[in-house]
Amino acid sequence: MSLYRPSRKPRNAAEGEAAVSDDVPLSTSGNADLTDAPSKAAAPAAENPTNVVNPDLTVTEIKKGVRPGDLYVRRHEPHRRLFRRVGPGHFEATEEASQSPSRPQVIYRKLKAIFIGRPLENAREIHERLSKVKALAVFSSDAISSVAYATGEIMFVLMIAGTAALNLTIPISFVIAMLLFIVAFSYRQTIFAYPNGGGSYIVSYENLGTKAGLVAAAALLIDYTLTVAVSISSGTDAITSAFPILRPFTVEIALGFVGLMTVVNLRGVTESGSIFAVPTYAFIVMLGGVIVLGLSGALLGWYQPPTDPVMHPVVEPLNLFLILTAFSTGAVAMSGTEAISNGVPAFKPPESKNAARTLTVMGTILAVFFVSVSLLAIFFKTDPGSSETIISQLGRAVYGDSVLYYIFQFATMGILVVAANTAFAGFPRLASILARDNFMPHQFSFRGDRLAFSVGIASLGIAAGLLILIFQGDVHGLIPLYAIGVFLAFTLSQTGMVIHWRKLRTAGWKRSAVINGVGAVATALILAVATLTKFMHGAWIVTILIPVLVVLFSMVHRHYSRVSDQLRIEPGLLPASTVKQFVLVPIDTVNYASLRALAFARSMKAQIIALHLNLDTERAQQTKEKMAQYAPDISFITLDSPYRQFVHPMAAYVEALHKQNPDVFVTIILPEFIPAHFWERALHGRTAQRLRAAFETHPNVAVVMVPYLLDD
Amino acid sequence: MSLYRPSRKPRNAAEGEAAVSDDVPLSTSGNADLTDAPSKAAAPAAENPTNVVNPDLTVTEIKKGVRPGDLYVRRHEPHRRLFRRVGPGHFEATEEASQSPSRPQVIYRKLKAIFIGRPLENAREIHERLSKVKALAVFSSDAISSVAYATGEIMFVLMIAGTAALNLTIPISFVIAMLLFIVAFSYRQTIFAYPNGGGSYIVSYENLGTKAGLVAAAALLIDYTLTVAVSISSGTDAITSAFPILRPFTVEIALGFVGLMTVVNLRGVTESGSIFAVPTYAFIVMLGGVIVLGLSGALLGWYQPPTDPVMHPVVEPLNLFLILTAFSTGAVAMSGTEAISNGVPAFKPPESKNAARTLTVMGTILAVFFVSVSLLAIFFKTDPGSSETIISQLGRAVYGDSVLYYIFQFATMGILVVAANTAFAGFPRLASILARDNFMPHQFSFRGDRLAFSVGIASLGIAAGLLILIFQGDVHGLIPLYAIGVFLAFTLSQTGMVIHWRKLRTAGWKRSAVINGVGAVATALILAVATLTKFMHGAWIVTILIPVLVVLFSMVHRHYSRVSDQLRIEPGLLPASTVKQFVLVPIDTVNYASLRALAFARSMKAQIIALHLNLDTERAQQTKEKMAQYAPDISFITLDSPYRQFVHPMAAYVEALHKQNPDVFVTIILPEFIPAHFWERALHGRTAQRLRAAFETHPNVAVVMVPYLLDD
Repeated sequence: MSLYRPSRKPRNAAEGEAAVSDDVPLSTSGNADLTDAPSKAAAPAAENPTNVVNPDLTVTEIKKGVRPGDLYVRRHEPHRRLFRRVGPGHFEATEEASQSPSRPQVIYRKLKAIFIGRPLENAREIHERLSKVKALAVFSSDAISSVAYATGEIMFVLMIAGTAALNLTIPISFVIAMLLFIVAFSYRQTIFAYPNGGGSYIVSYENLGTKAGLVAAAALLIDYTLTVAVSISSGTDAITSAFPILRPFTVEIALGFVGLMTVVNLRGVTESGSIFAVPTYAFIVMLGGVIVLGLSGALLGWYQPPTDPVMHPVVEPLNLFLILTAFSTGAVAMSGTEAISNGVPAFKPPESKNAARTLTVMGTILAVFFVSVSLLAIFFKTDPGSSETIISQLGRAVYGDSVLYYIFQFATMGILVVAANTAFAGFPRLASILARDNFMPHQFSFRGDRLAFSVGIASLGIAAGLLILIFQGDVHGLIPLYAIGVFLAFTLSQTGMVIHWRKLRTAGWKRSAVINGVGAVATALILAVATLTKFMHGAWIVTILIPVLVVLFSMVHRHYSRVSDQLRIEPGLLPASTVKQFVLVPIDTVNYASLRALAFARSMKAQIIALHLNLDTERAQQTKEKMAQYAPDISFITLDSPYRQFVHPMAAYVEALHKQNPDVFVTIILPEFIPAHFWERALHGRTAQRLRAAFETHPNVAVVMVPYLLDD
Repeated sequence: MSLYRPSRKPRNAAEGEAAVSDDVPLSTSGNADLTDAPSKAAAPAAENPTNVVNPDLTVTEIKKGVRPGDLYVRRHEPHRRLFRRVGPGHFEATEEASQSPSRPQVIYRKLKAIFIGRPLENAREIHERLSKVKALAVFSSDAISSVAYATGEIMFVLMIAGTAALNLTIPISFVIAMLLFIVAFSYRQTIFAYPNGGGSYIVSYENLGTKAGLVAAAALLIDYTLTVAVSISSGTDAITSAFPILRPFTVEIALGFVGLMTVVNLRGVTESGSIFAVPTYAFIVMLGGVIVLGLSGALLGWYQPPTDPVMHPVVEPLNLFLILTAFSTGAVAMSGTEAISNGVPAFKPPESKNAARTLTVMGTILAVFFVSVSLLAIFFKTDPGSSETIISQLGRAVYGDSVLYYIFQFATMGILVVAANTAFAGFPRLASILARDNFMPHQFSFRGDRLAFSVGIASLGIAAGLLILIFQGDVHGLIPLYAIGVFLAFTLSQTGMVIHWRKLRTAGWKRSAVINGVGAVATALILAVATLTKFMHGAWIVTILIPVLVVLFSMVHRHYSRVSDQLRIEPGLLPASTVKQFVLVPIDTVNYASLRALAFARSMKAQIIALHLNLDTERAQQTKEKMAQYAPDISFITLDSPYRQFVHPMAAYVEALHKQNPDVFVTIILPEFIPAHFWERALHGRTAQRLRAAFETHPNVAVVMVPYLLDD
C-alpha cells in the first residue's frame, strides 16, 4: 500500500506530462552486446509523451557495459508468478493472480478449500466425467430410491377405502412397472438422438417450438426442486423410522441434509460421484436382501404375516377416482428417467451407449424392486397409517431388530440423499442451458471456482429448503405437487421425439416414432389422471407456477434481446470517437485533496467548472479567495444552499447546465478520503458517496472519486 | 430523464470538439437595438473550443430584427424557479432546487412535513428564540420535575432502617434546598460571565484546560441521557400510579414517549416550547394546590394522617452511610441548573438577564416544592415501598379520587416529559459544540432541515431508549447512575469560574470567586458522598464510561488534526497541476457501450490500455478482431483467466503496471448499463460494481462508470 501513497513533493505542471521520458535511456549506442533489443511494445514510453507504463508487462533495465558510455538493455518480466506470457499483448493469470491478497480473503479461501475444495482450472473440465458404476449411483438413484416411498404412498391413498382395498396395491404396481418400461424404452431413443444431452427442454424446444420448450423447462425445474424436497424428507423418515426419538427434529434434519448437498455439489461433479456410490449400492444390496429373503421366506413358509394386523375402517367406499389417485401417486416413481438423458455428456465416452445401458439397468432394477416391495407389503400386512415407513416395516419383518435392519435404514436414507443429488446435477445444468439461451439470468451459466454452476446449485438448495420448511418435511403433503411437472415434461419430450423422427426420416424412423408415440400417449394419460385427481391437494400450485415461470423466461429473453439489439454495432452508425463533456468539481474547501481533484479534472479534455455549495458565508468567501489564488484558471461558481441541502441543489445545477446543451456528458469529480483506520470513516460525512448514489442511474453523468490517502 | 438519453446519431470525432460554436451567432451586427449585450460570462463558448455550457446559467437567444440581416441577442435565465442570481457566478438554491423531484422522495417529504415540519431556511434561525415564560417551561422543568421522585427516592433508601427513620427525610430535604440555593446563586455568575452559553464544558475547558473540559463534557452527555431515562420512567410511573392496569406496559409506554420526544425535537426549538409550556404550568398549579391545601389542612386539622399506615421493619440499623446515601439520592433534584446556563443563547434578548431571572424563579419554586412535599409525605405517612409514587399518594390524600387527582397525575407526567425535553435541547447543543471543536464527529454539528441538530437528537433518543430497555423503566435502578455526572460537571464548572474571576480581576471579582468557590466545595462534597455511597449500586458504570468517552474525544480530535495538517496547503509545496495517469478500459465485448467507454477514455489526456479478460477463447478472439476494426488506436491486451476470476486478475494487472511507475495514477473506465426497469438489474452481473468496490480504498485508482441507458 505504501507505494500508492500520493507524493507530496513539489511538482510543476509541465513536469507531469513528460516525466517518464527521463526513465528511458537517452543513449543506447549501437552496442553488439545488446542481448534483447526493446521491442516496439517494450518501450512505448519513448513514442508518446503521455505513455507512462508498458502494458506488455516487460521492464527494460539498463546496465553499464565494460567500456565507458556503453549501455546494455535487458528486458525481463518481473511478474512471472502472477502472469504467464502467451504472446505479445496476451497473458494468462496464474492461480495466485486470481486470488485476493487481503488477509480476511486468505482466511476465507482456506476455509473454502476445506469445505468446497481448491479452485479448478478450466483445463480440468474434461476429467470431470463419470464411469458407468458412478453414473448409476448418481443418475439412477432418483428413480430407484422412489421404491422407498412409492408403495407406501399408494397404500396411504387406498387405506381410506379400508384394509381390503390395500390389495389393489399389487395390480397398480404392475401397471406402473409396465409403463416404466414403455417410458424407459422411449427414452433410450432420445439418448441416441441427442448425445449432447437430450433433456425434455432441448427436445421440446427443437421439435415443438420455443413455448413448448419453456413449458418443459419450467416443469423440469419444479420437478428437480420437488425431487430434492421429497427425497430428503423421505430419507429423514427412514432415519426417524429407525430412531423414533428423532421425530421432533424432522425439519432440522432435512434442512441439514439439503445444506450438506449444496456444499458437496459446490465441490464439483466427480467428488459427488465418489461420495455417493457407496450408499446407492448399499441400498440395492440391502433391499435386494429384503426382497430375496422375504419372497423366498413367504413362499417357503419361513415367515408368517402378523396374526393381528392394524385394520383400517372404510372411510369412503372404493371408487375409480380413488384407484386413479393411488395410481398417479405411485407413478412418480418414474421421475428419474429424465435425469439420465439430460446428463449424457457427463458419462465417459462413448456417452450415449453408456447412458442407454445405465438406463436399462436402472429400469430393470426399479421395476423388480417396486413390484416386489408391493407384494411383500401386502403379504406382511404392513400398516400405511403408521409413521414408520412401509419399507422400514418390511426391513423389521425380514431382518428383525438386528444390525442389518439399521444398515438397511441408513442405506435407504443414503440413496434418497443421492437421489436429491441427481437434482443437484440436473437443475444447475438445465438452468445454465436456459441462461445460455437468454431465458434465465446469465449468472446461472457462470461456472464457479470448482467448475460447478454455483448460482444454480445455491438456488436449488434454497428453493428445496423453503419447500421443506413450508411442508414441514411431510412426504404425503409434497407428493401431490410432484407428478404434474414430471409427466408434463415426459409428454412434451416424447411428443417432440415423434416430430424429430418424422423430420429426419432416417432408417427405421417409423419404428422409433411409434415407440416414442406410445410413450407420449402413456405419459399424457398419466398427466391427465394426475392433474384430475391431485388438483385440489396441491397440484394447483404447480399449474399456476409453470405458466408464471414461462412468462418470466420470456421477459428475461425479451430483455436480453433488446439489450443486444441496442448494443450491436451497426456499420456506418458509429458513435463519436470521443465524448463531448464538461467537468464539475465540487469544492468544499481548498486543500491538497481538492487541488488533487482539480489536477484530475485538468487531465481531461473538457470545460472545468468548480462549484462551492455555500452553507456558511464566511467559509464560502475564504474558499473563493483561495480558489482565485491556487486555481485561477478554473471557473468558480458559488451556490448558496439556505436549506442546508447538498445533493439536490447540486443535481439541480447539473440539470440546468445540461439543459443548455443536452448532447454533452457530465463528469463530476470528488475528492475521497481514504482513512488509515476503519473507524475513522465514521468521522467523515458520506457526502461523496451520497452524491455518487444520486447520480448512479443518471444516463449522462459519471462520478469519479479521486482517492486521497490519509497517513496514520 | 428522456433528455439524457445518449444520442445514437452518427457523429464524427472532429465534430464533438467544436460543435457548440455552431450555436453561437456568427453575425451579431452592431445593432443599436441590442438590449443586453452578452457579457464575457454569458457566452464563454466562443472563447474556448472545449467549452460546452455556460456555468453562469444564462441563455443567449438570438432573434431576427425588423431589417433583414439584423439580429437581436436576448439574455435570459430560464431557471428562476430553482436558482436566484446573487451576483456573477453566485446563485442561491430555492426550496424547490433543494428537494429531490423523484416520486418516493416527494411522498416521504409530505409525510415528513406532517410529522417533522417543512424545511426551514437559515435566515429563520434568529426567530427560534424563547420568551421567559416558554423558557421556564423548557429549561426549568428538569429541576422542578424532580420533586416528582426526589422525596420518594430519599424515603426509599431510609425505609431500610424502619418507619421511624423516614422522619429524617425532612432535615435531608432542608439541607438539599440550602445547597440548591448555593448552586443556583453560583450559576447566576456563570450566566453573566458567559452570555453565549456557559455550560460546564466551556467553562471548564477555558479555565481548567482541555482535559477538564472533556471530563465535564462526558459527564454532561451522560447526565443528559440519564435525565431522559429517569424523567420518562418517572413520568410513566405517574401514569401507572393513576392507572395500575397499565403497569405491565411500563417499558412500552416509556419508549413511546422517548420516540415522541425525538420526533418533536427534530421539528425545532420554538414548537417544542409551545407544546410543552402547558404541562409545566399545569404541574406547578396542581402541585401548588396539593401543597397549599395539604399544609393548610394539616395545620388547621382538615386532614388527618391515616391511622393504620404501612409499617417498615428495621432491615439494617440507621447509620451515617445510609443517611449519606439518602442525601446523595435526593441531591439529583439539582441537576436542572446546568440547563439554563448552557442555554442562554436560546433566550430572547437580553439573554443573560432573562436567563438569570428564570434561574432564580426556578430555584425558589424547586426549593419550596421539594421541602413542602417532604413535609407532607411524612405528615400523611406515605409508603415509599408502594409501587404508587409518593406524590400520587399525596395527590390522592388531598384531592381524593376526584378529577383533580387525575389532572395532577397527567400534569406530573407532562412536566417530566418536558424535563426530558431539556436534555433534548442540551445534549445536541453540547454535542454540536464538541463537534465544532473537533472532539466529536462533525455530523453532530450539521443542522437538519428544521435547523435542529438532527444527529444529536437521534443519538440521545437511541441512548435513552436503550437505558430504559436495560433498566426496564425502573427509576430506583437508574437513580444511582445519575448523581456522579451531575455533580462532577457542577464541581468542574464552578472551580473553573473561580479561576475565571482570578484571571479577570474585574470589579467585585473576589466576591464572585467566593460565591463560586463555596458552590464548588459544596458540589465536590456531594460528588464525593455520591461516589462513595452509590459506587456498588451502578455508579461504577459511569466512572468507567467518563474516561472512555474522554479517550474517544481525544482520538477523534487527533484524527481531525492529522487530517487537517495533511490537507493544509503549504505555500511552495503545491501538488502537480495535472495528474499523470494511465487509463484502463476493461472490454468484455465490443458494442456501443464499450465504444462509449473508449470514447470517454479518449477524452482524457492519458495513455489508454484496453484489457479483455478471457473466460472463453472464441469470444476473446472475436473481441480482439473487433477492437482492431473499431478502435485500432488503442493498445489491446488479452488476459486469460483460467480460474474464471474477474476482479483479482485485473487488480493484479493494474498492480503490475503501477509498479513500473509508482508515481502514476490509474483510472479504470467501465461501461455501466442503466436498465429501463428495476427488475432488469438482476439480469446483469454486478461485475462493474464489484470492480469498483475492489478499488474503493486504493489510494491511486479511480473507477469511472460510464452510464449507458437501455431503452425500453
